Amino acid sequence: ECEQRLKGVTTSTLAAVLAKKGYTDLFMPGLVRVAGTQPMVGLALTLRLLPDRPDGAIGPEDNARNPQRVAVEGVRPGDIVVVDARNDARSGVLGDVLATRMMVLGCAGIVTDGAMRDVAQLESVGLPIYCAGTHGAASPSLHSYADVNLPVSCAGARINPGDVIVGDADGAVVIPRQLAEEVARDAKEQEDMENWVLSRIKEGAGSVDYYPPNAARRAEYEAWKAQN
Amino acid sequence: ECEQRLKGVTTSTLAAVLAKKGYTDLFMPGLVRVAGTQPMVGLALTLRLLPDRPDGAIGPEDNARNPQRVAVEGVRPGDIVVVDARNDARSGVLGDVLATRMMVLGCAGIVTDGAMRDVAQLESVGLPIYCAGTHGAASPSLHSYADVNLPVSCAGARINPGDVIVGDADGAVVIPRQLAEEVARDAKEQEDMENWVLSRIKEGAGSVDYYPPNAARRAEYEAWKAQN
Amino acid sequence: ECEQRLKGVTTSTLAAVLAKKGYTDLFMPGLVRVAGTQPMVGLALTLRLLPDRPDGAIGPEDNARNPQRVAVEGVRPGDIVVVDARNDARSGVLGDVLATRMMVLGCAGIVTDGAMRDVAQLESVGLPIYCAGTHGAASPSLHSYADVNLPVSCAGARINPGDVIVGDADGAVVIPRQLAEEVARDAKEQEDMENWVLSRIKEGAGSVDYYPPNAARRAEYEAWKAQN
Amino acid sequence: ECEQRLKGVTTSTLAAVLAKKGYTDLFMPGLVRVAGTQPMVGLALTLRLLPDRPDGAIGPEDNARNPQRVAVEGVRPGDIVVVDARNDARSGVLGDVLATRMMVLGCAGIVTDGAMRDVAQLESVGLPIYCAGTHGAASPSLHSYADVNLPVSCAGARINPGDVIVGDADGAVVIPRQLAEEVARDAKEQEDMENWVLSRIKEGAGSVDYYPPNAARRAEYEAWKAQN
Amino acid sequence: ECEQRLKGVTTSTLAAVLAKKGYTDLFMPGLVRVAGTQPMVGLALTLRLLPDRPDGAIGPEDNARNPQRVAVEGVRPGDIVVVDARNDARSGVLGDVLATRMMVLGCAGIVTDGAMRDVAQLESVGLPIYCAGTHGAASPSLHSYADVNLPVSCAGARINPGDVIVGDADGAVVIPRQLAEEVARDAKEQEDMENWVLSRIKEGAGSVDYYPPNAARRAEYEAWKAQN
Amino acid sequence: ECEQRLKGVTTSTLAAVLAKKGYTDLFMPGLVRVAGTQPMVGLALTLRLLPDRPDGAIGPEDNARNPQRVAVEGVRPGDIVVVDARNDARSGVLGDVLATRMMVLGCAGIVTDGAMRDVAQLESVGLPIYCAGTHGAASPSLHSYADVNLPVSCAGARINPGDVIVGDADGAVVIPRQLAEEVARDAKEQEDMENWVLSRIKEGAGSVDYYPPNAARRAEYEAWKAQN
Repeated sequence: ECEQRLKGVTTSTLAAVLAKKGYTDLFMPGLVRVAGTQPMVGLALTLRLLPDRPDGAIGPEDNARNPQRVAVEGVRPGDIVVVDARNDARSGVLGDVLATRMMVLGCAGIVTDGAMRDVAQLESVGLPIYCAGTHGAASPSLHSYADVNLPVSCAGARINPGDVIVGDADGAVVIPRQLAEEVARDAKEQEDMENWVLSRIKEGAGSVDYYPPNAARRAEYEAWKAQN
Repeated sequence: ECEQRLKGVTTSTLAAVLAKKGYTDLFMPGLVRVAGTQPMVGLALTLRLLPDRPDGAIGPEDNARNPQRVAVEGVRPGDIVVVDARNDARSGVLGDVLATRMMVLGCAGIVTDGAMRDVAQLESVGLPIYCAGTHGAASPSLHSYADVNLPVSCAGARINPGDVIVGDADGAVVIPRQLAEEVARDAKEQEDMENWVLSRIKEGAGSVDYYPPNAARRAEYEAWKAQN
Repeated sequence: ECEQRLKGVTTSTLAAVLAKKGYTDLFMPGLVRVAGTQPMVGLALTLRLLPDRPDGAIGPEDNARNPQRVAVEGVRPGDIVVVDARNDARSGVLGDVLATRMMVLGCAGIVTDGAMRDVAQLESVGLPIYCAGTHGAASPSLHSYADVNLPVSCAGARINPGDVIVGDADGAVVIPRQLAEEVARDAKEQEDMENWVLSRIKEGAGSVDYYPPNAARRAEYEAWKAQN
Repeated sequence: ECEQRLKGVTTSTLAAVLAKKGYTDLFMPGLVRVAGTQPMVGLALTLRLLPDRPDGAIGPEDNARNPQRVAVEGVRPGDIVVVDARNDARSGVLGDVLATRMMVLGCAGIVTDGAMRDVAQLESVGLPIYCAGTHGAASPSLHSYADVNLPVSCAGARINPGDVIVGDADGAVVIPRQLAEEVARDAKEQEDMENWVLSRIKEGAGSVDYYPPNAARRAEYEAWKAQN
Repeated sequence: ECEQRLKGVTTSTLAAVLAKKGYTDLFMPGLVRVAGTQPMVGLALTLRLLPDRPDGAIGPEDNARNPQRVAVEGVRPGDIVVVDARNDARSGVLGDVLATRMMVLGCAGIVTDGAMRDVAQLESVGLPIYCAGTHGAASPSLHSYADVNLPVSCAGARINPGDVIVGDADGAVVIPRQLAEEVARDAKEQEDMENWVLSRIKEGAGSVDYYPPNAARRAEYEAWKAQN
Repeated sequence: ECEQRLKGVTTSTLAAVLAKKGYTDLFMPGLVRVAGTQPMVGLALTLRLLPDRPDGAIGPEDNARNPQRVAVEGVRPGDIVVVDARNDARSGVLGDVLATRMMVLGCAGIVTDGAMRDVAQLESVGLPIYCAGTHGAASPSLHSYADVNLPVSCAGARINPGDVIVGDADGAVVIPRQLAEEVARDAKEQEDMENWVLSRIKEGAGSVDYYPPNAARRAEYEAWKAQN
C-alpha cells in the first residue's frame, strides 16, 4: 500500500520531504521521460556500465553471463531497472526488444543517465522510461556491462538495489528502502496540506502567511481537515 | 498598444531587429517553454539567486522579508518574473503554489535559467513559463534568494527591472524598456515585409533577390503595400 | 529504391548495421526533431559555418556569392541540407523563409548541430528538421558562412557531400554513399529478424536465446521466414 | 591576529572545519593561482559583472561612476577584490594596470571566476591572483560592471562583502565574517593534531586508528600535546 | 623487468601501441600531474566512489570497514591507487595524511578523475599524483566510498584491478595486465625506431618517407640497427 | 618589421586594439602554452580535422597525399601551423617527430584547439606550442585530416590562411593579414601609453583620471612623450 500512496504524490513533494530528512540529492536532474505517462513506482534493480575495451567484450554466445541479460532476465514484477551509464548519452543503452522482454516479466520502468534506442518503438511498449537522451547506436565501444545489483550512481543520485524509485512528469526520484513508508506518509500529509493552501491561494490568500502556513494558518488547516 | 503589437511578432523577428540596433545578445538560449502556449509579453520583475549557506537561511517565520516572497507578492498585473539562477538547473526555483499566487496577482509569465518544480501542475496554472529544466527538489543548498529588482543575468542576457520580455515557441527575448516602442514598430514592418517575401517564395521566387529584397524587389514590395 | 527501403527501417537499426561494418560514429547525438514527423531520407548538401569577423561579412547586395544562398539555391530534389555549426546553438542558422525556399526546390530535410529560428513557423513548412536547439537571433557574430559541399562535421559525425542521411524519432544518421545499397539491404534483413524476435519475446521467449538468435533460434527463424 | 592564524593553516583544513559547521560549499573549485605564491588572507570587496548591452555602456569619461573603478579605487589595505563573472572565462576582467593600482592601495589579492589579462605582467605585480583562466581581450560585450559590495557568487560559493578570503596552492576559500575567529582557532587545533598524526603515520602508524584519532589515540595526542 | 621497460617509454608511445591492438581509449584525458616528476609504473588498486547520502555515511568509529581505508591500508609495494570519482572534481578525494600512509606502504602513485586536497603538502610526499583538479574540501556530500578492487572507470578508461598504470608528463595510461609484456616490448621497439626517425628528421629528412618509415626507410633502419 | 613590432607587444594589448576596430573574438580562449616561452609571431598555415570514418582513412603508403603531411611538409620559414580540431582535446593531434620536422623547416609555432602528444619531448623541440590539452593517444577514430589552407575555426576564432598569429603567456591571438601593420602600430602606441600610465600608477596616481587618460592626462602624456 506504500506503493499506492507513492503513486498519489508528486516527485516534487517527495524530493521536498526527503530534503527535510537530510536527503538532498535524490532527485535525478536532466532526465527526460520518453515513454509512459502513467505514474511510475517500483524497486531498483541496478545495472552498472563501464567503458568498453576489447578484453571485456562478451559475445552473443555468452549472453547468459552478460550482466545486461542477467539484469533483463532477472526482472521481477514491480522492478525498475536503473542503468548507471556515467551520465554519458553518446550511445544507446537499451532498445525496444529488451524493453519488451522486461515488460513481459513485469518491469515497472527504466531509468538511466545514458541514452535509449528505438524511441518511437518504446512508446508502444508501455513502460515508463526516463533517460538522458536518445541515440540510435548500440554501445560499441562506449559502454560495456559491468555488474548487477551493486549500489550505483544515476544522474548524480546514489541508488542501492531495492530502493524505491518514483517518476512523474518532473522526472524521477529515489527513496531509500527503509524510508519509503515514512516518506509516503509524510508526502501524503504534505500534499493534503499543499492542496488546501492552493485552494486558499486561488481564493486570493497571500503566500507569506499560507505557504508554508504559519501557526494561525496551520490551526485553520487543522480545523478544516477535522471537518473534511 | 506597444504590448499588443509585440504579441503579433515573433521572438525571431524581435531578435533580428534588436541585432540591427547593436543589441546582439538579448535572446535567451537554452530555455524551454514548459507551460502556456499563448504569446507572452510583460515587464520584468527580477529576482536574483545566490548559492545558499547556513548564515543566509531565511526561515518560514521570516517569509515577509524573504526576497522570493517579496517578488511573488510584489507582482503587479502584466509583470513577468525573471529569476537569475546562474544557469544552474540542478534545483527547483519555483513550483505550482507560488506560480498560482503570481497568476492571481496578474503575473504574465515566469522566465528563469534555473529549473521549475511541479511541471505537470504548472501546465494547469495557465502561466507561460520558460526555464532551463525541471527539477523536483526545492533549493536546499544550491540556491538562496538574494534581492529583488536589481539588474540580473538570465541565460546570458542582461535584464533590467522594467524591461519588456516577450516569449513564443522559439524562446524568450528581452527588449530594453526605452526601445520597446521603436522595436515593436520596426518588428511589425519587418514581419509585414517577410510575409510578403514568404508569399513570393512560395510562388517560386528565389532567395537571392527577395530575401532581403534588393532595390527592385523593395520597390515591388512598396508598390504592393500601397495597394494592400 | 534504396531510398524506399531506407524509409522502412529505423535509425537505430541503421546505426547497428553500420557499427558492424566498423562505422561506429555516424549517428548524430544531441539533435532534436523540431518539425516534420515523416521519415526523412535524402542526399547531403553540406554548408560549413565559421565564427564571423568583420572582414568576412557578406552584405545582402552580395547574396549571390553568399555560401548560405549558394547552398539554398543549389538544392535539388531529394537533397538534405547539412549545416556544420560547430555544435554551437547560441545563434540561429536558418529560419522559415529560407526553409520554405528549400522546400519549394524539393529539399528533403535540414540537419544542423546549430540552432534553428522561427520554430513555430517551421512546423508548418513541412520539412523534417533536426537541430541542436532553437534560437531566435540570426547569427550576427557567432556564425558566418564559409563554403558549400566540402566534407563537414555535424554533431560529431563526418559527412561527405552526397552521403545518404536518414532521420526518424530517435534522430539522424549518415550513411556513406557507397554503402547505402548494402546497408539498406542488411538493415531490412535485420529488422525482419528483429520483428520476428519481438513477436517471440511478446509470447514469452527469453532474451538469452532469442536476441540475437543463437544457432537453434536462427534455424527456427529461417524456417519461419521460408514459410512466410 | 585572526588573520595571522589563518595564514598559518591550509585552505584544505579551513574547508574541512567549515564543513563540520555545516558550511559545505565555501571552497571555490576550478580557480587557478596565476600570480603570488605567498599565503593570501583578506576581507572581501565584491564586484558584480553582468552581460553587457549598449545601453549599459559606461565610457571612460564616466570612469568615476564605473563600478569597476568604484571597486578599484575603494580598496582599503587588506581587501581582497572578488569579481563575480558568472563563471565565464571568455573575456578578461582585470589586467596589470588596475591590479597595480589596487596593490598601491594595499590590496591583498584578487579572486574571480572570470579570466585575467596580462598574466606575464601580473606575476611581477606581486598580488596573489586566483582566476578561472587567462584571456587577452578586455570584456567588450561579454561583461559589464554592475555593482559593488553586494553579496555575490564566485565559483559556486556565496560571498558577502567583508567575508574573510584565504588562498593557498589548493585554491581559495571564503569564511563568513562572524565565523572567522572560531574557524581560525579550530583550524589551528586541527592542523596541530593532523601534524601529530602525520608524524605518527611517517613512523608507520596505520590510518584506521590514527586518522582521525580514535579515543585511545586522542588520549595519546593529548598527552603528547601536554608535554610539548 | 616489464616494469623497467615501461619506465623507459612514454605514455604517447604506449597509447599508440595499444591503439594498434584495438585498445583505443586507455589514455586518461584531462588529468594533470600535481606531484612527482619521476616516471610512474605500478599495478592498479581500484576504489570506487558514489554520491553520498546520509544512510551510507561511515563514521570514524567504523574506519576499519570504510572502503577508503580498506584501499589505503591494503596498498602493497608497487600499487597505484586508482579512484573512480565519476569525473567530478568538485570535492577533494584524498589528502596528504592518507597519501603519506600509502607512501609508507610502498604505493607507486595515485590516479583519480576527482580532485586532490593539500596539493602543496602532496608535493613533498614524493608520490606521483594525477588528478582532475585540486579542491580543499573533503567530500561531505558529493562522494562516499563504495567498494575496493572492482573494475572502474577513470577519466573515461576502464581499469581492472591489477592492470598496469603508467604515467609521465603527458598523463596516465592503463595497460591491461595480460598485455603488459607484449606492450612493453612493442613500445620499446617503437621508441627505438622513432628515435632513429627523429635523428634523421633532425638531419633534414622528410616526414613522408620516414614517419612511419616506408619499405626503403625501414630497410635503412634495420641495417642501422644491426650495426648499433 | 611589422613582425618585430608585434613581438614587442602583448596579446592583451593586441586583443584590445582589435576590439576597438570591431574585431572582438580573435583571442583564442582556453589554450595553454605547453612549450616555448619566447614571443611567437608568424603566418597561419591552416589544417582542418574532421571526425574519422573508415572510408576516409589514409594509410602510411599514401603519406604524400595525407593533408597532415601536406601541411607539415608545406611549412615555410615563419609559418605557424593552426590545427582546427573542433575544440576536442580527447585525442593527440601532433607529436614530437612532426613538430621537429616543422622546426627544421622554419616553423614559428603550433596552435590547436585539440591536444598535443609527447609534451615532455616537445619542450626540447624549442617551438612555441599552444593547445587545449595533452593526450598521449594519436587520433585513431576521433580525428582525421581534411584539408589544408582553408579558413578554419580555432578555439572560437576564425583564422584565414596567411593571417598573423601572435602568442605570449596569456595565450594566442589572430590578426587579419590586412590589418597587421595598422594593429602593430596602434598596439605599440597603446603599450607606450600604458607603460607611462603604469609608471604614474606606481607613483600613486588614481585609475579614474589616468586609465585611460582623460584630456588633461593625455596632454601630460603627450608632453612627456615629446620629451622622451
